[in-house]
Amino acid sequence: MFDVKVKAEVLREVVDVISTLVDEAKFNFTKDAVSVKAVDPAHVAMVDLTLERGAFESYRADDGELGLDMDKVKEVLKLARPTDVISITHEEEKNRLVLNVGNTTRRMSLVDTAGMSDPKVPSLNLPAKVTIRADELRQGIRASESVSDHIALIAGPDGFEIVSEGDTDTVSHKVSKELLEELSAKETVRSLFPLDYFSNMVKAISTAPTVRLYLGSDYPVKMEFKVSGGKGEVKYLLAPRIESDS
Amino acid sequence: MFDVKVKAEVLREVVDVISTLVDEAKFNFTKDAVSVKAVDPAHVAMVDLTLERGAFESYRADDGELGLDMDKVKEVLKLARPTDVISITHEEEKNRLVLNVGNTTRRMSLVDTAGMSDPKVPSLNLPAKVTIRADELRQGIRASESVSDHIALIAGPDGFEIVSEGDTDTVSHKVSKELLEELSAKETVRSLFPLDYFSNMVKAISTAPTVRLYLGSDYPVKMEFKVSGGKGEVKYLLAPRIESDS
Amino acid sequence: MFDVKVKAEVLREVVDVISTLVDEAKFNFTKDAVSVKAVDPAHVAMVDLTLERGAFESYRADDGELGLDMDKVKEVLKLARPTDVISITHEEEKNRLVLNVGNTTRRMSLVDTAGMSDPKVPSLNLPAKVTIRADELRQGIRASESVSDHIALIAGPDGFEIVSEGDTDTVSHKVSKELLEELSAKETVRSLFPLDYFSNMVKAISTAPTVRLYLGSDYPVKMEFKVSGGKGEVKYLLAPRIESDS
Repeated sequence: MFDVKVKAEVLREVVDVISTLVDEAKFNFTKDAVSVKAVDPAHVAMVDLTLERGAFESYRADDGELGLDMDKVKEVLKLARPTDVISITHEEEKNRLVLNVGNTTRRMSLVDTAGMSDPKVPSLNLPAKVTIRADELRQGIRASESVSDHIALIAGPDGFEIVSEGDTDTVSHKVSKELLEELSAKETVRSLFPLDYFSNMVKAISTAPTVRLYLGSDYPVKMEFKVSGGKGEVKYLLAPRIESDS
Repeated sequence: MFDVKVKAEVLREVVDVISTLVDEAKFNFTKDAVSVKAVDPAHVAMVDLTLERGAFESYRADDGELGLDMDKVKEVLKLARPTDVISITHEEEKNRLVLNVGNTTRRMSLVDTAGMSDPKVPSLNLPAKVTIRADELRQGIRASESVSDHIALIAGPDGFEIVSEGDTDTVSHKVSKELLEELSAKETVRSLFPLDYFSNMVKAISTAPTVRLYLGSDYPVKMEFKVSGGKGEVKYLLAPRIESDS
Repeated sequence: MFDVKVKAEVLREVVDVISTLVDEAKFNFTKDAVSVKAVDPAHVAMVDLTLERGAFESYRADDGELGLDMDKVKEVLKLARPTDVISITHEEEKNRLVLNVGNTTRRMSLVDTAGMSDPKVPSLNLPAKVTIRADELRQGIRASESVSDHIALIAGPDGFEIVSEGDTDTVSHKVSKELLEELSAKETVRSLFPLDYFSNMVKAISTAPTVRLYLGSDYPVKMEFKVSGGKGEVKYLLAPRIESDS
């Protein structure tokens, strides 16, 4: 059984987070929460999202799973204002999802989850931790966009830095320790990432004022932020690129 | 003689209504009103628009007709704010139209009306009548757009419904009797229409708060609404598509 | 030495004025001012811009020159709000420019100025002078855009007129003497210009409320306006087109 009501703005946040990496996703649900784990087709990034039942206006569910096409859910979201309530019901006999917003009802076929794996979130030992305002992170990414396809994320005892190095030009966006919400980095660590992936992940942050980054040297970055006013959490993982000596 | 002054917002409404179906149109005028009847090139839809002399700031005309290119009139409208007054004068000796807005004067060649027919508006006996808020109709069309190229319009004793059926998904936008301005339907009637035509017709409604639909089963739909605060009226007619059994 | 601070809105005005004609430009500077003279690649138009040291928040410079890529400077401007201060420093040993806005630093390679000429501004004897509100000029250009690729600029004792003549239609935008800020034209003069160039030059006027035009018959037009609240000045020169008899 899956029969819930949720505000459009909450569902939109969830869909934006997931559709950054995949077009279709398996939603696992229990009586307490909905969760999604997915790896992008190029196996470069992973998302691990949890939304507690408290994030919903009403929530009734047994253990189960639903395969959803993110574009179809977005089409329903386009019909709703942020605070409109969308009701979502699984019609088990017909194996379809019925979404209702206002006077509109959409009956949606489900995606077969047989071919969808449950990716295992790797356990990583990342020595540096940075909590930064999402706005500041966005500004750093905007600054990097014109110069290179890659960015280096650097954390050290003094602060956090995003560096983008092109053939002729270099952009550095440096946030000193005092301007960070939190910084824990005994040594300076540095890893290189594909800018498009990292940028899209940051764009998926809609309401969270801050985001936490876990970093190492030539290691993946883990990005954590809240959704639905703290009633849900997102963990993104992004693989590093090999940094060539120059 | 044709020598009038009209607010840009009134002319824009008229041009939007007509250019939904045709690029060029014959404007017939008498001393009391301007009227346009036109059929789209695919012969799927018809427009029948009347604008009384009271919709103009000033109006002097004998019986006559003018062939106008809608895009050229739109170019003049782009130069005007909604409440700007546009003066339009027919220079008969040169057979051109002179439009004036502010400090700008456009001298415009006319389109030859020799090849333009005067379509006859068919008399139809449509058993159901629905008056609905234009906003509600727009929302129903937006909901349908992602699922199919066609929509079924259904009216019955309980209400009015727009249904769009795709291969895997279905969208229904149902407005119950209580939410309609007016409903007269003894039996349930249903006809299928091309979504793009119907959507463009609804988009041409700019100021009218409500629109009246006349419907039958596998029959054309007639759509009526006011322009220029009631000093003009539009009647659209749209042919049905054959509904295949499924 | 070149080490200055300037508000983003001032730098943006300068960059917009120059990039209308060229992608790269040589900035000449002295201890009192920065100036740029450039001719577009088709040799149809010229810009001559001067920005006094008073337009900067701080200014330290010896005599020198810097070759700049306008697109790169625009990329830095995208990161700044209008009143943000951008610091610009020439690192002579590495021959690069360092631009700093907020937490972002961009190190930018310079363009080789060896191939950039210093165009000589021709001395022209243009008999008519018109000072017009920039808004009025923009409206006149908008009106002309749909009809032809060329516009005639006409000044006479009674006023100023922009005329655009197409195959079937004509647009005239006439500003009578009383609506001009200033008019000096003993005889009527008329020259024809490429609309795209003239339109782009007018679009580069961002803050100046008025613009002064110097005109002759089949002669270039000189356009003058202020930037940075009067602490800088722009002179554009645009070559006429030959008017064919029709």
